[in-house]
Amino acid sequence: MIIDWIGPRVPGLGNHPVKRVVGDRVTVETDLLADGHDQLAGVVRYRRRLSGEEWREVPLEATDNDRFRATFVVDAIGSWEYTVRAWVDVWASFLWGLRRKLEAKQGIELELQDGALLAAAAAQRAAGQDRKALEDVAARLRDRGDPARRVEEVLRADVGSLMRAHSDRTTATTHDPPLEITVDPLIARFGSWYELFPRSTGPSGTHGTFKDAEAVLPYIAEMGFSIVYLPPIHPIGKTHRKGIDNRLTASAGDPGSPWAIGSTEGGHRDIHPDLGTAEDFRRFVRAARELKLAVALDIALQASPDHPWVTEHPEWFVHRADGSIQFAENPPKKYQDIYPFDFAGKSWESLWLALRDIFFHWIGEGIRIFRVDNPHTKSLRFWEWCIRTIKARHPEVIFLAEAFTRPKLMYTLAKLGFSQSYTYFTWRTTKSEIVEYVRSLTAGDLPEFFRPNFWPNTPDILPEHLQYGTRATFIVRATLAATLSPSYGIYGPAFELGERAAREGAEEYASNEKYQLRTWDLSRPDSLRPVLRRLNEIRRDNVALQRVEGTFFHSTDNDQLLAYSRTSEDGANTVLCVVNLDPHHRHQGWISLDLKRLGVAEGSSFQVHDLMSDARFLWRERRAFVSLDPAVMPVHVFRVRRRVRSEHNFEYYL
Amino acid sequence: MIIDWIGPRVPGLGNHPVKRVVGDRVTVETDLLADGHDQLAGVVRYRRRLSGEEWREVPLEATDNDRFRATFVVDAIGSWEYTVRAWVDVWASFLWGLRRKLEAKQGIELELQDGALLAAAAAQRAAGQDRKALEDVAARLRDRGDPARRVEEVLRADVGSLMRAHSDRTTATTHDPPLEITVDPLIARFGSWYELFPRSTGPSGTHGTFKDAEAVLPYIAEMGFSIVYLPPIHPIGKTHRKGIDNRLTASAGDPGSPWAIGSTEGGHRDIHPDLGTAEDFRRFVRAARELKLAVALDIALQASPDHPWVTEHPEWFVHRADGSIQFAENPPKKYQDIYPFDFAGKSWESLWLALRDIFFHWIGEGIRIFRVDNPHTKSLRFWEWCIRTIKARHPEVIFLAEAFTRPKLMYTLAKLGFSQSYTYFTWRTTKSEIVEYVRSLTAGDLPEFFRPNFWPNTPDILPEHLQYGTRATFIVRATLAATLSPSYGIYGPAFELGERAAREGAEEYASNEKYQLRTWDLSRPDSLRPVLRRLNEIRRDNVALQRVEGTFFHSTDNDQLLAYSRTSEDGANTVLCVVNLDPHHRHQGWISLDLKRLGVAEGSSFQVHDLMSDARFLWRERRAFVSLDPAVMPVHVFRVRRRVRSEHNFEYYL
Repeated sequence: MIIDWIGPRVPGLGNHPVKRVVGDRVTVETDLLADGHDQLAGVVRYRRRLSGEEWREVPLEATDNDRFRATFVVDAIGSWEYTVRAWVDVWASFLWGLRRKLEAKQGIELELQDGALLAAAAAQRAAGQDRKALEDVAARLRDRGDPARRVEEVLRADVGSLMRAHSDRTTATTHDPPLEITVDPLIARFGSWYELFPRSTGPSGTHGTFKDAEAVLPYIAEMGFSIVYLPPIHPIGKTHRKGIDNRLTASAGDPGSPWAIGSTEGGHRDIHPDLGTAEDFRRFVRAARELKLAVALDIALQASPDHPWVTEHPEWFVHRADGSIQFAENPPKKYQDIYPFDFAGKSWESLWLALRDIFFHWIGEGIRIFRVDNPHTKSLRFWEWCIRTIKARHPEVIFLAEAFTRPKLMYTLAKLGFSQSYTYFTWRTTKSEIVEYVRSLTAGDLPEFFRPNFWPNTPDILPEHLQYGTRATFIVRATLAATLSPSYGIYGPAFELGERAAREGAEEYASNEKYQLRTWDLSRPDSLRPVLRRLNEIRRDNVALQRVEGTFFHSTDNDQLLAYSRTSEDGANTVLCVVNLDPHHRHQGWISLDLKRLGVAEGSSFQVHDLMSDARFLWRERRAFVSLDPAVMPVHVFRVRRRVRSEHNFEYYL
Repeated sequence: MIIDWIGPRVPGLGNHPVKRVVGDRVTVETDLLADGHDQLAGVVRYRRRLSGEEWREVPLEATDNDRFRATFVVDAIGSWEYTVRAWVDVWASFLWGLRRKLEAKQGIELELQDGALLAAAAAQRAAGQDRKALEDVAARLRDRGDPARRVEEVLRADVGSLMRAHSDRTTATTHDPPLEITVDPLIARFGSWYELFPRSTGPSGTHGTFKDAEAVLPYIAEMGFSIVYLPPIHPIGKTHRKGIDNRLTASAGDPGSPWAIGSTEGGHRDIHPDLGTAEDFRRFVRAARELKLAVALDIALQASPDHPWVTEHPEWFVHRADGSIQFAENPPKKYQDIYPFDFAGKSWESLWLALRDIFFHWIGEGIRIFRVDNPHTKSLRFWEWCIRTIKARHPEVIFLAEAFTRPKLMYTLAKLGFSQSYTYFTWRTTKSEIVEYVRSLTAGDLPEFFRPNFWPNTPDILPEHLQYGTRATFIVRATLAATLSPSYGIYGPAFELGERAAREGAEEYASNEKYQLRTWDLSRPDSLRPVLRRLNEIRRDNVALQRVEGTFFHSTDNDQLLAYSRTSEDGANTVLCVVNLDPHHRHQGWISLDLKRLGVAEGSSFQVHDLMSDARFLWRERRAFVSLDPAVMPVHVFRVRRRVRSEHNFEYYL
């Protein structure tokens, strides 16, 4: 007997864990090849890793083409493991032959005697009542009485259970080593992120503090976001500090980039004094938690020339021919305000420990979500070790990779442990681009380990279509992000306030908060706040939007109309979105609906309930007409309501 | 640095070897993920396994999307291994940054000093002349002279070679364990099989001998076959012997089925006395070899009730409740003339050794090709062990699996070591069936380990379409088999003599040679002998037909016209086949040729030379008209001849 394949698994050479969130079902599939006509039995064994728990078992069931399947639920956060154990089921093999002979009306006296031997052997492996029962079965099969009655005996369900319970597993094959599953909290897959610069929350013109930022939390929570993510909160270097608009030299009042970490006031474990104290930060985190907002911190593993480690640990940096420390480069770009760490240097061990301690420090301060800056320019092996060892102690911690890089490198970071990743969504704007990209994210085994996070904008990226778009563009981008990916985020308030001024010739914000304080009028009447609130509500109410899989694109006869449905794992919840991708013109056209994908029977009428406008339409045909005016609302987000009959025989749409 | 993928490899859990034939190129592809902007260098290391040879190395070259590639040739039969070793190429990383800075016209004095340090470090790792040369490079870079001249120095090709030769490999990553390659003789992939019952070669009505069969060998060789395959040649049991037409009881003169192996005259290592002596067999093998025919033996691991082992080794069989030995069954079918072996019984070790010794015995008698009867009803683990250990001593031996069973089981046998396999070709007759099936055989990684063998008929299978077809059906089936698969075979002379009488209601021959002697008139004028001879010649002359890959189906506007081209690995040889699948009617229609697949430039005329009829057609357009009359010849087998210009400026078609 051969175990030829087991999944879910991560493709590639690394035997990396697949990812799930707590409460998920894990459906294991395996190809088991038997010798000849042998019938096989087997189980999936699973347990939490390193827990000392006994294996739990769930029986494998044959599907077709030598494939077997079993499902179990991962009901706790942490590292799990599973494997397949299978063996020849002698009793099932015996019954298989017996049934075929009975059908052909052949004599089966000798077969019944063979069955008696099998029952007697099983009795030897059993004890107590079971042993007695199996001995009785053997005796009844042995006696030369009415064959029909004895056949009945053989086929009895309780005899089958007994034989199964005491089958001979001494020749069982177990796949070793087991496969790993990382079970995360739900927020690793499903979350609405809001990026906020706390220093821009101060009274007009002054440097904001955590206390000021605290006052903005209800605003964010009321919009329905679940995560507030802060750029680095550490002291900022002065040497080669960048001025406003990324100028090479800073003026006296320029606050510098938060990513140039470290000054005489401290490093990665310290808080910028202008933001407040450690206690202020803790208060901020507590206040967020009371509003059901998780706080995510940005960890950028690099140092400004003023970082205390530059003098305390020069061995952690690369030195050049003239003795100077190598600053960051992406030739020909130079970042003199930033020193990268030497992950492969002679002192890598002490460096790696110190870097990991940064995470442990902030975990100690109550942080469970880290957005990691440019992980692909650090060391892949470092991340593998760092994340694995942190999650061994704190399995609830999650890591978002800010890796806008080559696809395989993004996937590798996910394989090595990152819980989720930024994506190319930011630049996918046409119908064919969006369809192709979303399909690629659910192709093959990718969803087993790579969880996308869709961002319409970031402080680094103000894409062209937002610069030249309209209010409708912002609504469309938010809707696409919020409904095509279970995790999405915006950099606010720039996003909801429709900020679109770009630095000349760049996909970057003018007057970028990375280099200066900004003051935002959160109460502006044209704010997209109500749209975002509605989208986040819809996400919370519709589980179809809380997973990566389950997207289907319906064809439309207009290239500016994108239609897709999202369906929950159990099929009960279906959301249908129609988006006008052109921010300037009204578009109308026909959608060819795949009714099966909507869970609707051919010929049956169904309701599409626009959760944005609360309008309801009664549809029946496979073809539906849609008209969307960007000046009014460029999207429909329909809940598909199927006709059901109440117990009082009243029909309604659920 | 991460090695995320290496191929070729066999999919699944087993780390089984991929297959090649001697002289093949192995193109290794690997995904290497570097940290940050690191540039990588690497090699594929390869050698014959267990040979004590040093590793050979071939440098990896970057393709795109983090993929690297290298090719080597396996120039000897046997077991090979390969792996990937890769490291950060510090010099290439340095040059990468330097070039970008030069383009941006930045100062590079400090970079040149860094380069000097790298050259000096490489000098430390070198010796002799290289050391001296590298020290000179370092010195020239260090001196503060004209930067342009020093940049030139850095970019010199010989400096690059020196730096590469002495790059720092101490941090190299090597994938371990290496991956295996089984390198077979060409005949494992490319062969034309002819199945012959020697006992039917006697003078009319008498039992044929090896001496009689010897006289048929020139006939088979003249048709261009490369392998003559004999059903089991051992003594045949008398107990429960099957009569003619598979009757349950034999009459006095019935010879029995050669697959019911063993009698008082001997077992699997003995020869049926009516066929001759061991010396007669050796003479037969020698005679075949002189005609460049290899002899393949059928090994069926089962025993008749009269096999000597039944009394000598009752422990090798399954015993039932009444003490009787279990005969073979495929319920409700019973084969009382055959006892299966108990591969998983208590005495499995001595049984396995004895069974393997059967192969060693016949290898000793000069046999290198075995056709294994129903391997899927034996033990998978046995085959894995048996084939691996036989090939360790005799790597030139090949095994054909007669496994007409479920697809994954067929693939598993191939993974476990079988060199090639029977296929479902026998039953694939319509255009869509043939296209789909041939595509499935070249899909994904299947060709890495599964080699098909196409049989239009076997002694067990006279498919319906041959029963009810015409002479054209036989020509079509032979052509499809011979041109779509590098290995194919026929059961003759039944095939070339167009035998189509079936046992009532079965896909089996009437008066089957499995149960009786037959006399064949090999000189019949309607024999397909000339067609087969031509096909085998075409196969020998066109390397495009000698590999599994390289098939492309061109669309036609008539469902009875199948068009496909076959191209050699280097693209130089292209064969285009057009087949009329309807044996009763003339069909004509248009083929839409994919000219690129034919190696022909758009707009350029080319010649298609029908190797069956020797007719030549001049084609130019993408669309070509074809008309095939089954009463004349139902197939075109074109060699595509492209226009070339001779050195005397004369144009001709090659």
